Amino acid sequence: MLTKTEAAQKLLALDDVLILCHRNPDGDTLGSGFALARALLNKGRRARVFCHDAVPEKFAYMVPEMPDFEPKTVISVDVADFALFGERTEAQIARYGPVALAIDHHPSHRQFAEELYLEGDSASCCEIIWGLLKERKDEWQLDAAIASCLYTGVATDTGCFKFSNTSPRTHRTAAELMELGADYVSINKVMFDTKTFEDLKLERLALDRLWMSADGKVAVMTITKELMDEAGVDETGLDAITALPRKIEGVEVGITLKQRGESEFKVSVRTGETTSASDICAHFGGGGHARAAGCQFEGLSPEEIREKMVKAAYGEMGRG
Amino acid sequence: MLTKTEAAQKLLALDDVLILCHRNPDGDTLGSGFALARALLNKGRRARVFCHDAVPEKFAYMVPEMPDFEPKTVISVDVADFALFGERTEAQIARYGPVALAIDHHPSHRQFAEELYLEGDSASCCEIIWGLLKERKDEWQLDAAIASCLYTGVATDTGCFKFSNTSPRTHRTAAELMELGADYVSINKVMFDTKTFEDLKLERLALDRLWMSADGKVAVMTITKELMDEAGVDETGLDAITALPRKIEGVEVGITLKQRGESEFKVSVRTGETTSASDICAHFGGGGHARAAGCQFEGLSPEEIREKMVKAAYGEMGRG
Repeated sequence: MLTKTEAAQKLLALDDVLILCHRNPDGDTLGSGFALARALLNKGRRARVFCHDAVPEKFAYMVPEMPDFEPKTVISVDVADFALFGERTEAQIARYGPVALAIDHHPSHRQFAEELYLEGDSASCCEIIWGLLKERKDEWQLDAAIASCLYTGVATDTGCFKFSNTSPRTHRTAAELMELGADYVSINKVMFDTKTFEDLKLERLALDRLWMSADGKVAVMTITKELMDEAGVDETGLDAITALPRKIEGVEVGITLKQRGESEFKVSVRTGETTSASDICAHFGGGGHARAAGCQFEGLSPEEIREKMVKAAYGEMGRG
Repeated sequence: MLTKTEAAQKLLALDDVLILCHRNPDGDTLGSGFALARALLNKGRRARVFCHDAVPEKFAYMVPEMPDFEPKTVISVDVADFALFGERTEAQIARYGPVALAIDHHPSHRQFAEELYLEGDSASCCEIIWGLLKERKDEWQLDAAIASCLYTGVATDTGCFKFSNTSPRTHRTAAELMELGADYVSINKVMFDTKTFEDLKLERLALDRLWMSADGKVAVMTITKELMDEAGVDETGLDAITALPRKIEGVEVGITLKQRGESEFKVSVRTGETTSASDICAHFGGGGHARAAGCQFEGLSPEEIREKMVKAAYGEMGRG
């Protein structure tokens, strides 16, 4: 494990670098990658960000003009496990790798890189990157575009400073990034205050089919392929709705079933402070965090899955 | 106008004080009032908070045990105009007043108190109170309960640090209040992550009746008495839904009609960065802020009101 001083020095020494994000990219992995790329480009270095999937449209403002070159060093940001790179990225690693340095904030990080800088208590990887850039502030040319990239990860990974991972340092990071020129008004609007008409339709259809336990402590929402078609969304549009059942007043365990294949369902579980989501999912070979976890089922009907999940939820409820 | 130093000194000198909030109390006026009362009580002073309306259940954690006494001084927090006190509070002022000191953050403040401390660029009154307490930190006994009161106002008045009124100082205030022990996890959950079943039902019913202009730039939602009855909510439960039309992707002007009396409608307007909500409402004798304003109608059908509002919206659209 590198020290902070060593990691800050490593970043400053990078050139001809390929920066890797995790697949299904979110604001934090992309914000970390593009902020670092921009900082290096501002210094006249060559840097490029690579991700197995395309950058979602709402994050397009982060992407700088990136030169084409033969990478000499490969690093990763916000990637907790080699399995999260995806095949297209694995091919890049095979060609230009190995991964020399991983910067991450997941306590569950499984080391795959030659060197690691991990802050497991940081709410986002962008918060770490900011700390490292700040350490050698005078040697970088930090600008508003970098601040916007980093603010994006800091804000999205904390649900706009709402989740329990938010720390005093998270808020101070936001303050400093705003002072550096982060376009927080637009970013907050796009990330937290915009619903597509399709999202709203999906929400309406899904709520019509919400299942609640008799005591109101467990809520189960089932998103079938048919329902997604009717609302006009694909699987990438299901993130927000996954959090909905748990938000209902009195609900301790919120469960969302999402149909993938014909008889394949992905299940997301969100819990309150007194029940472990990962323990519930562990019954079915899944896992995750204490408050958010997942598992998968094949060959069962939604009703059968619901019955199993609800039984497991009641078994774990109140055990933390 | 008092200076910050003078205002900080005034607070420290308070005793036997009645602290007044505005009617229809929110997290900011109550957080300011109860934080100040708690700080004074911790010093052995007598202080009591008064509001025309009862403290909503979700803010009950703020309320300390308050002694009964004959107030010698009356002050107000977060009250922009005498008209916002409400009759029950006016009776208290008649008995114990006048209002010696008003602390407020509304740029539109209309002075009614003998002395005023105003920071018009502060996102919340709680942010101001924290600044004033901090100024003389060693002379107060500040504790976690005070921090929770102040955090409540700082977070609720900024939509959990999402709105454009959020400043670097707002984030630093949050950081300091968290360090003082603010119970931010519970507060964020209750204020920003909880929906009652009734809220969800209302949302569903209202979305079924959403009107969108052909170009998708204006959305109008009509909440009739009948719809409120069906969902099981009263007027106090309409706050969240008022913001919904504007959240729809592409919508520049979001309008919500809320039925009050038989033929009386209250209209709320929320706008994007390029249209003035208060200019739209000014057509009908209403007003407010640039991004959020309101007006009222009597004797017109919802369809007639919608037609007038949409016409005014198109007239103002793009003029800022």
